[in-house]
Amino acid sequence: MITWLGALMTVLLLKNLLKVRCGVLTAETEHVDVATLEKLEQQGIDCEPKASTIRIIQDKYLQKVHFSRHGIPLPEFMEINNLEETKRAGELYGYPLMIKGKRLAYDGRGNAVAKSEGELSSAIDVLGGFGRGLYVEKWAPFIKELAVIVARGRDNSILCYPVVETIHKENICHIVKAPADVPWRIRKLANDVAYKAISSLEGAGVFAVELFLTRDGQILLNEVAPRPHNSGHHTIESCYTSQFEQHLRAVVGLPLGDPSMKTPAAIMYNLLGEDEGEPGFKVAHQLIARALEIPGATAHWYDKPEMRRQRKMGHITLVGPSVGVLEARQKSMLREEGYENRNEVAPRVGIVMGSDSDLPVMKDAARILNMFGVSTEVRIVSAHRTPELMYSYASSARERGIQVIIAGAGGAAHLPGMVASLTPLPVIGVPVRASTLDGIDSLLSIVQMPRGVPVATVAVNNATNAGLLAVRMLGVGDADLLARMNQYQEDTRDYVLTKAEKLRKDGWEAYLNQ
Amino acid sequence: MITWLGALMTVLLLKNLLKVRCGVLTAETEHVDVATLEKLEQQGIDCEPKASTIRIIQDKYLQKVHFSRHGIPLPEFMEINNLEETKRAGELYGYPLMIKGKRLAYDGRGNAVAKSEGELSSAIDVLGGFGRGLYVEKWAPFIKELAVIVARGRDNSILCYPVVETIHKENICHIVKAPADVPWRIRKLANDVAYKAISSLEGAGVFAVELFLTRDGQILLNEVAPRPHNSGHHTIESCYTSQFEQHLRAVVGLPLGDPSMKTPAAIMYNLLGEDEGEPGFKVAHQLIARALEIPGATAHWYDKPEMRRQRKMGHITLVGPSVGVLEARQKSMLREEGYENRNEVAPRVGIVMGSDSDLPVMKDAARILNMFGVSTEVRIVSAHRTPELMYSYASSARERGIQVIIAGAGGAAHLPGMVASLTPLPVIGVPVRASTLDGIDSLLSIVQMPRGVPVATVAVNNATNAGLLAVRMLGVGDADLLARMNQYQEDTRDYVLTKAEKLRKDGWEAYLNQ
Repeated sequence: MITWLGALMTVLLLKNLLKVRCGVLTAETEHVDVATLEKLEQQGIDCEPKASTIRIIQDKYLQKVHFSRHGIPLPEFMEINNLEETKRAGELYGYPLMIKGKRLAYDGRGNAVAKSEGELSSAIDVLGGFGRGLYVEKWAPFIKELAVIVARGRDNSILCYPVVETIHKENICHIVKAPADVPWRIRKLANDVAYKAISSLEGAGVFAVELFLTRDGQILLNEVAPRPHNSGHHTIESCYTSQFEQHLRAVVGLPLGDPSMKTPAAIMYNLLGEDEGEPGFKVAHQLIARALEIPGATAHWYDKPEMRRQRKMGHITLVGPSVGVLEARQKSMLREEGYENRNEVAPRVGIVMGSDSDLPVMKDAARILNMFGVSTEVRIVSAHRTPELMYSYASSARERGIQVIIAGAGGAAHLPGMVASLTPLPVIGVPVRASTLDGIDSLLSIVQMPRGVPVATVAVNNATNAGLLAVRMLGVGDADLLARMNQYQEDTRDYVLTKAEKLRKDGWEAYLNQ
Repeated sequence: MITWLGALMTVLLLKNLLKVRCGVLTAETEHVDVATLEKLEQQGIDCEPKASTIRIIQDKYLQKVHFSRHGIPLPEFMEINNLEETKRAGELYGYPLMIKGKRLAYDGRGNAVAKSEGELSSAIDVLGGFGRGLYVEKWAPFIKELAVIVARGRDNSILCYPVVETIHKENICHIVKAPADVPWRIRKLANDVAYKAISSLEGAGVFAVELFLTRDGQILLNEVAPRPHNSGHHTIESCYTSQFEQHLRAVVGLPLGDPSMKTPAAIMYNLLGEDEGEPGFKVAHQLIARALEIPGATAHWYDKPEMRRQRKMGHITLVGPSVGVLEARQKSMLREEGYENRNEVAPRVGIVMGSDSDLPVMKDAARILNMFGVSTEVRIVSAHRTPELMYSYASSARERGIQVIIAGAGGAAHLPGMVASLTPLPVIGVPVRASTLDGIDSLLSIVQMPRGVPVATVAVNNATNAGLLAVRMLGVGDADLLARMNQYQEDTRDYVLTKAEKLRKDGWEAYLNQ
């Protein structure tokens, strides 16, 4: 039936394509009739990616064989044709065992898990039996699922989008976080695997490479889609070139666009069909209504004619300064406990000090940040008296959305350096003058850090400059703050010039007597 | 004729609107028949913005009278009905004198300048005579033209987009730079005037407020458009909410979106029709082809059926880290002299030192930045021996796209502090150990800055930490760098742990003997 339909489609499509002088043909899904594509290619129609690529990808078993041959790391797998073979696979790979249909499998459909040998036959029944073509995969003990959108141009130039984390709910992509919160080494590894996988295929276009990150830090390929993909929807708002524009650039032979992110972070939240009919729409529409009140949130509604449970009905993308801040906004959108107050502004600067006796000095930093409209939190965190608090404060600061830390301490002033060793954020150290040594002890304890861990040290007791330095640092990613700093400098100059003019006019004696 | 047409349109439109139960009616141009709008309003159709607003705005003279009554600063103006009145206006306001048509004036059409009394009659002839309704404006000695897109919701909430600079070519908007490179005080003033102007009008929607910045730092209103506007096209790529989405949010009564920029800077370049027919298209298409190779550039082609000289045929928006970097990219796109090499990467960090004798220390900063893939320039700039060079280097750094400066100096080490006083960028100071005093002189000269001008000081001779601190600072706006810094810290830890394990296994004596 498919063959007959395929033949008919070929004739109709070909006639049409030749009539309109089609420059290039691409597919928005891999579930197309490859035989038709191949006939079209024979007739001179340019398919991107190539029919050979679609053929490999639409059969998941063939896909695994292909990538395995090209040295791409994969979970172990084997074809199964009967219960005996399946049992042997179970003995070899252990349980739980993943059983998959070779074709027409997506969004978790076509997958079944057997937790023991006893569950094998029922799992195979769920999948529709051996007739459809099945294979098994060794269970990948992954701790995260990652994905990389890869673009390949007609000139075979390849560019990778930032690695994202995909979070699934009942086997369906639910949330995507960009960039993935994994070590840089893992990101590089994920990129390398994705690059290599796409290099092994033919034709231009955008591809999605889904990956497993295992507990021991390995990256295994899960599967590839030869098209724009749910894990790349965030690129519409967050990247210089969206995956959709990139796909068109790739297939028509334009130069590939810049795939890097123009916002530091993005979260994509799928609106999945909850139930048949109205109630499901209501939940989704409520979420969209809330999203409209969240800064940096964009709602997409696909306007599909009917809702089905777990069907992708739309999505909401949040973009902003850090994944931490976006997670808080997402929780507020979902009205999760403790996040109902959506108008709370996440602090951008954390001011910490070893003791409340430092506050009379450190308040000057808070005043400056206030003046510049920078949200700030002020906390007592002592390196020597609350080492656990210091550890948790410093190591969680980044994910909470803090961008700069100011730490003040006196005497054997360890706080700034210790905080700097626990976070990748820039740390500003304020040496507070203690009762002896006139602050030279504090200064040297803070500034003379070993190679590897810098503290941006300011003058003794000069928390004003710490606040100003924090504003300059935030200005690296905030042109408004930079302009305000410029204005502050002009105002300071004008203030001094006024004094200078007064001294010139009044003379030094009158000036001193005022 | 307009009245008759208006009446016909009213009937047709009203019939249609009532049939489809139109929720709200908005206009994409102010050159519509207001009488029709008013009749629609009387029939209960909700027009946003209100017909009263369109009526005020479409007659530029009425607009001036309106804003003048509401205390908005404007160039002086008066109605003219004959040559006598025009001459009197010329005597009052001086020359050059701006003569404008009250209605159907846009993109410089309907404006004429008389440089002397002798030119008055010919200027009036060019405009079509007094019959169309004319007025004169005192010449505004502006140094820049600015614009603010303002959104007003149905609940009268008002939000302003960042102030932009608009650059005109033969009276037609040619380039828009966002944000405008003017002092913060001017931006605030421009915002205030725009806010006040829109507050005085009725109805919801997006409005463009065009402004003059005069030599003495005043902001004067030029004119207002009651709709999305060319000066806001950059918002599609550069802001959390584009002006088009914002207009829809406003008129249908949704909450207004965040108007702030998600990229630090944007430049919008209009593709203006060069000549009739093909050659013009060719130039524009050449520019678009080049834009496709520029990171962060997006081309928009309106596909208008015919090209006319100076007609807006499309536009290209560049977004990126700073206006300076974007200007260089724009020049490369236009193949301006000295900018042909479009692949040049603008340095993000400037490393300066007072003397080449500092290089053996300062090279460590360059090495670290290299390792992290941060583009860097290394220069000799001496505070004491090349003060002019220091001045020009520091004060131009920001507009050249530099984001962080590292300055090293020894002895009476003035370079870091002087550079910091000339730029709003964060400056990292490296005290270089000179021949006497073991570096304590350099350290104190750099760290003990007066209130107002901070230098982020690192340990004596520790340029490695200066490089690492620069990476952390850039990480404020670059999540990738932050992740790489995290990885660097993990690698350092693993390196030390390896040594620790070796010491534990070998014992301290064997360890020392290796």
